[in-house]
Amino acid sequence: MRLWYRPGSAALAPHAALAEIGVDYELAEVGFEDPAEADPEFLRLNPAGRVPTLEDGDFVLTESAAIMLYLAERFPEARLLPDDKRERAQVYRWLVYLTNTLQPAFMRFFYPHRYGADAVREGAALEEHFDWIDGELAGRTWLVGDDRTVADLFLWMLVRWGRRLDRPAWDRPNVRAYFLRLLERPPLRRVLEEQGLELPALS
Amino acid sequence: MRLWYRPGSAALAPHAALAEIGVDYELAEVGFEDPAEADPEFLRLNPAGRVPTLEDGDFVLTESAAIMLYLAERFPEARLLPDDKRERAQVYRWLVYLTNTLQPAFMRFFYPHRYGADAVREGAALEEHFDWIDGELAGRTWLVGDDRTVADLFLWMLVRWGRRLDRPAWDRPNVRAYFLRLLERPPLRRVLEEQGLELPALS
Repeated sequence: MRLWYRPGSAALAPHAALAEIGVDYELAEVGFEDPAEADPEFLRLNPAGRVPTLEDGDFVLTESAAIMLYLAERFPEARLLPDDKRERAQVYRWLVYLTNTLQPAFMRFFYPHRYGADAVREGAALEEHFDWIDGELAGRTWLVGDDRTVADLFLWMLVRWGRRLDRPAWDRPNVRAYFLRLLERPPLRRVLEEQGLELPALS
Repeated sequence: MRLWYRPGSAALAPHAALAEIGVDYELAEVGFEDPAEADPEFLRLNPAGRVPTLEDGDFVLTESAAIMLYLAERFPEARLLPDDKRERAQVYRWLVYLTNTLQPAFMRFFYPHRYGADAVREGAALEEHFDWIDGELAGRTWLVGDDRTVADLFLWMLVRWGRRLDRPAWDRPNVRAYFLRLLERPPLRRVLEEQGLELPALS
Protein backbone atom coordinates (compact mmCIF):
# COMPACT_ATOMS: atom_id res chain seq x y z
CA MET A 1 0.00 0.00 0.00
CA ARG A 2 1.54 3.27 -1.08
CA LEU A 3 0.15 6.81 -0.84
CA TRP A 4 1.39 9.59 -3.10
CA TYR A 5 1.05 12.87 -1.25
CA ARG A 6 2.13 16.47 -1.00
CA PRO A 7 2.59 17.74 2.60
CA GLY A 8 -0.58 19.29 4.02
CA SER A 9 -2.62 18.63 0.86
CA ALA A 10 -5.88 16.70 0.52
CA ALA A 11 -3.76 13.56 1.01
CA LEU A 12 -3.78 14.29 4.75
CA ALA A 13 -7.19 12.69 5.30
CA PRO A 14 -6.51 9.36 3.54
CA HIS A 15 -3.08 9.30 5.21
CA ALA A 16 -4.93 9.65 8.52
CA ALA A 17 -7.16 6.72 7.55
CA LEU A 18 -4.11 4.54 6.87
CA ALA A 19 -2.59 5.49 10.22
CA GLU A 20 -5.86 4.90 12.12
CA ILE A 21 -6.14 1.47 10.49
CA GLY A 22 -2.58 0.67 11.53
CA VAL A 23 -1.74 -1.20 8.31
CA ASP A 24 1.79 -0.98 6.88
CA TYR A 25 2.06 1.69 4.22
CA GLU A 26 4.67 3.62 2.28
CA LEU A 27 4.58 7.30 1.47
CA ALA A 28 5.81 8.82 -1.78
CA GLU A 29 6.13 12.59 -1.77
CA VAL A 30 5.20 14.41 -4.95
CA GLY A 31 7.65 17.29 -5.19
CA PHE A 32 6.20 19.28 -8.06
CA GLU A 33 3.29 21.64 -8.54
CA ASP A 34 3.23 21.47 -12.35
CA PRO A 35 2.19 17.99 -13.60
CA ALA A 36 4.62 18.51 -16.52
CA GLU A 37 7.47 18.15 -14.01
CA ALA A 38 6.11 15.02 -12.35
CA ASP A 39 7.88 11.74 -11.79
CA PRO A 40 7.01 9.60 -14.87
CA GLU A 41 6.16 6.67 -12.57
CA PHE A 42 3.56 8.83 -10.87
CA LEU A 43 2.11 10.15 -14.16
CA ARG A 44 1.71 6.59 -15.39
CA LEU A 45 -0.50 5.92 -12.35
CA ASN A 46 -2.34 9.22 -12.47
CA PRO A 47 -2.09 11.16 -15.75
CA ALA A 48 -3.68 14.24 -14.16
CA GLY A 49 -0.78 14.35 -11.67
CA ARG A 50 -3.07 15.00 -8.72
CA VAL A 51 -2.60 13.94 -5.13
CA PRO A 52 -3.59 11.88 -3.29
CA THR A 53 -3.17 8.67 -5.28
CA LEU A 54 -3.31 5.31 -3.51
CA GLU A 55 -1.66 2.16 -4.80
CA ASP A 56 -2.85 -1.12 -3.30
CA GLY A 57 -0.78 -3.67 -5.18
CA ASP A 58 -1.75 -3.13 -8.81
CA PHE A 59 -4.93 -1.24 -7.92
CA VAL A 60 -4.78 2.55 -8.25
CA LEU A 61 -7.33 4.95 -6.77
CA THR A 62 -7.69 8.74 -6.61
CA GLU A 63 -10.01 11.19 -4.80
CA SER A 64 -9.52 11.51 -1.05
CA ALA A 65 -13.06 10.66 -0.03
CA ALA A 66 -13.16 7.63 -2.35
CA ILE A 67 -9.83 6.36 -1.01
CA MET A 68 -11.18 6.67 2.53
CA LEU A 69 -14.35 4.73 1.75
CA TYR A 70 -12.28 2.04 0.04
CA LEU A 71 -9.91 1.74 3.01
CA ALA A 72 -12.82 1.65 5.46
CA GLU A 73 -14.36 -1.27 3.56
CA ARG A 74 -11.04 -3.08 3.04
CA PHE A 75 -10.24 -2.94 6.77
CA PRO A 76 -13.62 -3.18 8.52
CA GLU A 77 -11.94 -4.04 11.83
CA ALA A 78 -10.74 -0.41 12.02
CA ARG A 79 -14.40 0.67 12.30
CA LEU A 80 -14.01 3.78 10.17
CA LEU A 81 -17.65 3.36 9.09
CA PRO A 82 -20.52 2.43 11.44
CA ASP A 83 -22.29 -0.90 10.90
CA ASP A 84 -25.73 0.61 11.26
CA LYS A 85 -27.05 1.65 7.83
CA ARG A 86 -28.59 4.90 9.06
CA GLU A 87 -25.50 5.95 10.97
CA ARG A 88 -23.37 5.04 7.98
CA ALA A 89 -25.63 7.17 5.79
CA GLN A 90 -25.03 10.14 8.09
CA VAL A 91 -21.29 9.57 7.72
CA TYR A 92 -21.80 9.65 3.94
CA ARG A 93 -23.76 12.89 4.31
CA TRP A 94 -20.91 14.51 6.24
CA LEU A 95 -18.23 13.19 3.93
CA VAL A 96 -20.13 14.40 0.84
CA TYR A 97 -20.73 17.84 2.35
CA LEU A 98 -17.09 18.16 3.37
CA THR A 99 -15.85 17.19 -0.10
CA ASN A 100 -18.42 18.98 -2.26
CA THR A 101 -18.98 22.18 -0.26
CA LEU A 102 -16.27 22.90 2.30
CA GLN A 103 -13.27 21.63 0.33
CA PRO A 104 -14.17 23.55 -2.90
CA ALA A 105 -14.69 26.70 -0.79
CA PHE A 106 -11.14 26.25 0.54
CA MET A 107 -9.85 25.80 -3.01
CA ARG A 108 -11.43 29.13 -4.00
CA PHE A 109 -10.01 30.76 -0.85
CA PHE A 110 -6.48 29.38 -1.33
CA TYR A 111 -6.37 29.78 -5.14
CA PRO A 112 -8.78 32.62 -6.02
CA HIS A 113 -6.94 33.32 -9.31
CA ARG A 114 -7.83 29.83 -10.60
CA TYR A 115 -11.54 30.45 -10.18
CA GLY A 116 -11.83 34.20 -10.65
CA ALA A 117 -12.96 34.12 -7.01
CA ASP A 118 -12.68 36.72 -4.27
CA ALA A 119 -10.64 35.37 -1.34
CA VAL A 120 -12.29 37.74 1.15
CA ARG A 121 -15.75 36.57 0.19
CA GLU A 122 -14.70 32.91 0.24
CA GLY A 123 -13.11 33.35 3.66
CA ALA A 124 -16.37 34.80 4.99
CA ALA A 125 -18.32 31.87 3.51
CA LEU A 126 -15.92 29.41 5.15
CA GLU A 127 -16.34 31.11 8.51
CA GLU A 128 -20.11 30.70 8.22
CA HIS A 129 -19.64 27.01 7.52
CA PHE A 130 -17.47 26.60 10.61
CA ASP A 131 -20.05 28.49 12.71
CA TRP A 132 -22.64 25.96 11.57
CA ILE A 133 -20.30 23.02 12.20
CA ASP A 134 -19.61 24.36 15.68
CA GLY A 135 -23.32 24.17 16.42
CA GLU A 136 -23.56 20.64 15.02
CA LEU A 137 -20.70 19.50 17.27
CA ALA A 138 -22.38 20.77 20.45
CA GLY A 139 -22.66 17.90 22.90
CA ARG A 140 -21.02 15.44 20.54
CA THR A 141 -17.70 13.65 20.69
CA TRP A 142 -17.68 12.71 16.98
CA LEU A 143 -19.74 13.81 13.99
CA VAL A 144 -21.77 10.58 13.97
CA GLY A 145 -22.11 7.83 16.57
CA ASP A 146 -19.65 7.00 19.31
CA ASP A 147 -16.44 6.39 17.38
CA ARG A 148 -14.38 8.44 14.94
CA THR A 149 -15.22 7.76 11.31
CA VAL A 150 -13.86 8.74 7.91
CA ALA A 151 -15.90 11.94 8.20
CA ASP A 152 -14.02 12.98 11.35
CA LEU A 153 -10.66 12.38 9.68
CA PHE A 154 -11.75 14.53 6.74
CA LEU A 155 -12.97 17.33 9.00
CA TRP A 156 -9.72 17.12 10.97
CA MET A 157 -7.89 17.99 7.75
CA LEU A 158 -10.23 20.86 6.93
CA VAL A 159 -10.09 22.39 10.43
CA ARG A 160 -6.31 22.37 10.05
CA TRP A 161 -6.68 24.15 6.69
CA GLY A 162 -8.92 26.63 8.49
CA ARG A 163 -5.99 27.89 10.58
CA ARG A 164 -5.44 30.38 7.78
CA LEU A 165 -8.83 32.08 8.07
CA ASP A 166 -8.98 35.53 9.68
CA ARG A 167 -10.73 33.81 12.53
CA PRO A 168 -9.24 30.30 12.58
CA ALA A 169 -11.71 27.44 12.31
CA TRP A 170 -10.72 26.19 15.77
CA ASP A 171 -11.56 29.55 17.36
CA ARG A 172 -15.02 28.16 18.21
CA PRO A 173 -15.58 26.20 21.42
CA ASN A 174 -16.91 22.92 20.04
CA VAL A 175 -14.65 22.84 17.00
CA ARG A 176 -11.70 23.54 19.29
CA ALA A 177 -12.47 20.72 21.74
CA TYR A 178 -13.11 18.34 18.83
CA PHE A 179 -9.90 19.26 17.03
CA LEU A 180 -7.87 18.86 20.24
CA ARG A 181 -9.49 15.46 20.80
CA LEU A 182 -8.37 14.40 17.32
CA LEU A 183 -4.89 15.84 17.76
CA GLU A 184 -4.42 13.72 20.88
CA ARG A 185 -4.71 10.54 18.83
CA PRO A 186 -1.29 8.93 18.28
CA PRO A 187 -2.09 7.94 14.65
CA LEU A 188 -2.84 11.55 13.76
CA ARG A 189 0.33 12.79 15.48
CA ARG A 190 2.22 10.24 13.43
CA VAL A 191 0.64 11.58 10.21
CA LEU A 192 1.74 15.14 10.97
CA GLU A 193 5.24 13.96 11.79
CA GLU A 194 5.48 11.83 8.64
CA GLN A 195 4.43 14.78 6.50
CA GLY A 196 6.87 17.10 8.30
CA LEU A 197 4.02 19.29 9.59
CA GLU A 198 4.03 21.04 12.94
CA LEU A 199 1.49 20.17 15.58
CA PRO A 200 -0.94 23.11 15.26
CA ALA A 201 -0.51 25.62 18.07
CA LEU A 202 -4.07 26.66 18.77
CA SER A 203 -4.07 30.37 19.39
CA MET B 1 -40.15 6.75 1.41
CA ARG B 2 -40.59 10.38 0.38
CA LEU B 3 -38.28 12.62 -1.65
CA TRP B 4 -38.49 16.40 -1.42
CA TYR B 5 -37.41 17.86 -4.76
CA ARG B 6 -37.44 20.84 -7.04
CA PRO B 7 -37.84 19.98 -10.76
CA GLY B 8 -34.51 19.52 -12.53
CA SER B 9 -32.47 20.16 -9.37
CA ALA B 10 -29.87 17.92 -7.74
CA ALA B 11 -32.81 15.79 -6.58
CA LEU B 12 -32.93 14.29 -10.08
CA ALA B 13 -30.16 11.76 -9.37
CA PRO B 14 -31.59 10.32 -6.11
CA HIS B 15 -35.04 10.31 -7.76
CA ALA B 16 -33.45 8.22 -10.55
CA ALA B 17 -32.06 5.85 -7.92
CA LEU B 18 -35.53 5.37 -6.41
CA ALA B 19 -37.01 4.70 -9.85
CA GLU B 20 -34.24 2.26 -10.81
CA ILE B 21 -34.77 0.39 -7.53
CA GLY B 22 -38.48 0.18 -8.26
CA VAL B 23 -39.53 0.74 -4.65
CA ASP B 24 -42.71 2.70 -3.88
CA TYR B 25 -41.98 6.34 -3.19
CA GLU B 26 -43.77 9.65 -2.86
CA LEU B 27 -42.58 12.97 -4.22
CA ALA B 28 -43.05 16.31 -2.47
CA GLU B 29 -42.31 19.35 -4.59
CA VAL B 30 -40.60 22.28 -2.90
CA GLY B 31 -42.12 25.35 -4.49
CA PHE B 32 -39.93 28.10 -3.08
CA GLU B 33 -36.44 29.39 -3.73
CA ASP B 34 -36.10 31.35 -0.48
CA PRO B 35 -35.98 29.00 2.56
CA ALA B 36 -37.91 31.70 4.49
CA GLU B 37 -40.95 30.83 2.36
CA ALA B 38 -40.68 27.10 2.84
CA ASP B 39 -43.33 24.70 4.03
CA PRO B 40 -42.84 24.49 7.82
CA GLU B 41 -43.05 20.69 7.62
CA PHE B 42 -40.09 20.72 5.24
CA LEU B 43 -38.07 23.15 7.36
CA ARG B 44 -38.58 20.93 10.38
CA LEU B 45 -36.91 18.09 8.43
CA ASN B 46 -34.22 20.23 6.87
CA PRO B 47 -33.65 23.62 8.50
CA ALA B 48 -31.38 24.72 5.62
CA GLY B 49 -34.33 24.26 3.24
CA ARG B 50 -32.21 22.49 0.64
CA VAL B 51 -33.28 19.82 -1.82
CA PRO B 52 -33.08 16.91 -2.09
CA THR B 53 -34.20 15.60 1.28
CA LEU B 54 -35.17 11.95 1.69
CA GLU B 55 -37.52 10.65 4.36
CA ASP B 56 -37.44 6.92 5.03
CA GLY B 57 -39.96 6.55 7.82
CA ASP B 58 -38.57 8.69 10.61
CA PHE B 59 -35.08 8.79 9.11
CA VAL B 60 -34.12 11.99 7.26
CA LEU B 61 -31.14 12.33 4.94
CA THR B 62 -29.74 15.12 2.74
CA GLU B 63 -26.99 15.40 0.08
CA SER B 64 -27.72 13.70 -3.24
CA ALA B 65 -24.65 11.47 -3.30
CA ALA B 66 -25.20 10.35 0.31
CA ILE B 67 -28.87 9.56 -0.39
CA MET B 68 -27.80 7.45 -3.39
CA LEU B 69 -25.25 5.47 -1.38
CA TYR B 70 -27.83 4.91 1.35
CA LEU B 71 -30.43 3.68 -1.15
CA ALA B 72 -27.89 1.44 -2.89
CA GLU B 73 -27.08 -0.24 0.45
CA ARG B 74 -30.70 -0.42 1.58
CA PHE B 75 -31.77 -2.16 -1.65
CA PRO B 76 -28.76 -4.27 -2.67
CA GLU B 77 -30.89 -6.30 -5.09
CA ALA B 78 -31.04 -3.23 -7.37
CA ARG B 79 -27.27 -3.56 -7.86
CA LEU B 80 -26.58 0.17 -7.86
CA LEU B 81 -23.12 -0.59 -6.42
CA PRO B 82 -20.83 -3.42 -7.58
CA ASP B 83 -20.03 -6.24 -5.14
CA ASP B 84 -16.34 -6.22 -5.98
CA LYS B 85 -14.50 -3.87 -3.60
CA ARG B 86 -12.21 -2.44 -6.28
CA GLU B 87 -15.05 -1.81 -8.71
CA ARG B 88 -17.08 -0.27 -5.92
CA ALA B 89 -14.12 1.98 -5.09
CA GLN B 90 -14.06 3.20 -8.69
CA VAL B 91 -17.77 4.00 -8.40
CA TYR B 92 -16.94 6.03 -5.27
CA ARG B 93 -14.18 7.80 -7.19
CA TRP B 94 -16.61 8.80 -9.95
CA LEU B 95 -19.34 9.81 -7.53
CA VAL B 96 -16.92 11.93 -5.48
CA TYR B 97 -15.49 13.62 -8.58
CA LEU B 98 -18.99 14.34 -9.91
CA THR B 99 -20.16 15.84 -6.62
CA ASN B 100 -16.98 17.73 -5.61
CA THR B 101 -15.72 18.98 -8.97
CA LEU B 102 -18.34 18.87 -11.74
CA GLN B 103 -21.39 19.80 -9.65
CA PRO B 104 -19.71 22.84 -7.97
CA ALA B 105 -18.51 24.01 -11.42
CA PHE B 106 -22.15 23.90 -12.57
CA MET B 107 -23.20 25.88 -9.50
CA ARG B 108 -20.68 28.61 -10.37
CA PHE B 109 -21.84 28.52 -14.00
CA PHE B 110 -25.56 28.71 -13.16
CA TYR B 111 -25.24 31.15 -10.24
CA PRO B 112 -22.06 33.20 -10.87
CA HIS B 113 -23.34 36.07 -8.69
CA ARG B 114 -23.36 33.80 -5.62
CA TYR B 115 -19.67 33.03 -5.98
CA GLY B 116 -18.31 36.14 -7.64
CA ALA B 117 -17.55 33.75 -10.51
CA ASP B 118 -17.33 34.34 -14.25
CA ALA B 119 -19.91 32.24 -16.11
CA VAL B 120 -17.87 32.26 -19.35
CA ARG B 121 -14.83 30.90 -17.59
CA GLU B 122 -16.86 28.30 -15.69
CA GLY B 123 -18.53 27.20 -18.92
CA ALA B 124 -15.12 26.68 -20.52
CA ALA B 125 -13.96 24.65 -17.51
CA LEU B 126 -17.09 22.49 -17.72
CA GLU B 127 -16.50 21.84 -21.41
CA GLU B 128 -12.98 20.61 -20.60
CA HIS B 129 -14.41 18.25 -18.02
CA PHE B 130 -16.86 16.83 -20.54
CA ASP B 131 -14.05 16.42 -23.10
CA TRP B 132 -12.18 14.35 -20.54
CA ILE B 133 -15.31 12.35 -19.62
CA ASP B 134 -15.90 11.65 -23.32
CA GLY B 135 -12.45 10.05 -23.49
CA GLU B 136 -13.11 8.01 -20.36
CA LEU B 137 -16.36 6.67 -21.83
CA ALA B 138 -14.66 5.44 -25.03
CA GLY B 139 -15.41 1.75 -25.46
CA ARG B 140 -17.49 1.59 -22.29
CA THR B 141 -21.16 1.04 -21.70
CA TRP B 142 -21.14 2.35 -18.13
CA LEU B 143 -18.60 4.30 -16.06
CA VAL B 144 -17.56 1.21 -14.08
CA GLY B 145 -18.22 -2.48 -14.70
CA ASP B 146 -21.06 -3.96 -16.73
CA ASP B 147 -24.13 -2.46 -15.06
CA ARG B 148 -25.31 1.07 -14.36
CA THR B 149 -24.39 2.31 -10.90
CA VAL B 150 -25.12 5.34 -8.75
CA ALA B 151 -22.28 7.12 -10.58
CA ASP B 152 -24.07 6.73 -13.93
CA LEU B 153 -27.30 8.12 -12.52
CA PHE B 154 -25.40 11.12 -11.16
CA LEU B 155 -23.64 11.73 -14.48
CA TRP B 156 -26.98 11.40 -16.29
CA MET B 157 -28.21 14.37 -14.26
CA LEU B 158 -25.10 16.42 -14.97
CA VAL B 159 -25.10 15.71 -18.72
CA ARG B 160 -28.68 16.96 -18.74
CA TRP B 161 -27.54 20.11 -16.90
CA GLY B 162 -24.86 20.43 -19.56
CA ARG B 163 -27.47 21.11 -22.26
CA ARG B 164 -27.06 24.78 -21.36
CA LEU B 165 -23.36 24.99 -22.23
CA ASP B 166 -22.38 26.74 -25.47
CA ARG B 167 -21.45 23.32 -26.72
CA PRO B 168 -23.87 20.96 -24.95
CA ALA B 169 -22.28 18.18 -22.93
CA TRP B 170 -23.89 15.56 -25.19
CA ASP B 171 -22.28 17.07 -28.29
CA ARG B 172 -19.44 14.53 -27.91
CA PRO B 173 -19.73 11.05 -29.45
CA ASN B 174 -19.25 8.89 -26.37
CA VAL B 175 -21.19 11.13 -24.01
CA ARG B 176 -24.00 11.24 -26.56
CA ALA B 177 -24.26 7.45 -26.96
CA TYR B 178 -24.07 7.04 -23.18
CA PHE B 179 -26.73 9.65 -22.47
CA LEU B 180 -29.06 8.13 -25.10
CA ARG B 181 -28.51 4.70 -23.52
CA LEU B 182 -29.59 6.12 -20.16
CA LEU B 183 -32.56 7.99 -21.63
CA GLU B 184 -33.87 4.72 -23.08
CA ARG B 185 -34.31 3.29 -19.60
CA PRO B 186 -37.99 3.30 -18.54
CA PRO B 187 -37.18 4.30 -14.92
CA LEU B 188 -35.37 7.42 -16.12
CA ARG B 189 -38.19 8.34 -18.49
CA ARG B 190 -40.54 7.99 -15.56
CA VAL B 191 -38.37 10.37 -13.49
CA LEU B 192 -38.48 13.07 -16.18
CA GLU B 193 -42.23 12.67 -16.52
CA GLU B 194 -42.80 12.80 -12.75
CA GLN B 195 -40.77 16.02 -12.52
CA GLY B 196 -42.60 17.52 -15.51
CA LEU B 197 -39.40 17.74 -17.55
CA GLU B 198 -39.18 17.26 -21.30
CA LEU B 199 -37.24 14.39 -22.79
CA PRO B 200 -34.06 16.19 -23.92
CA ALA B 201 -34.01 16.75 -27.68
CA LEU B 202 -30.37 16.16 -28.54
CA SER B 203 -29.36 18.74 -31.11
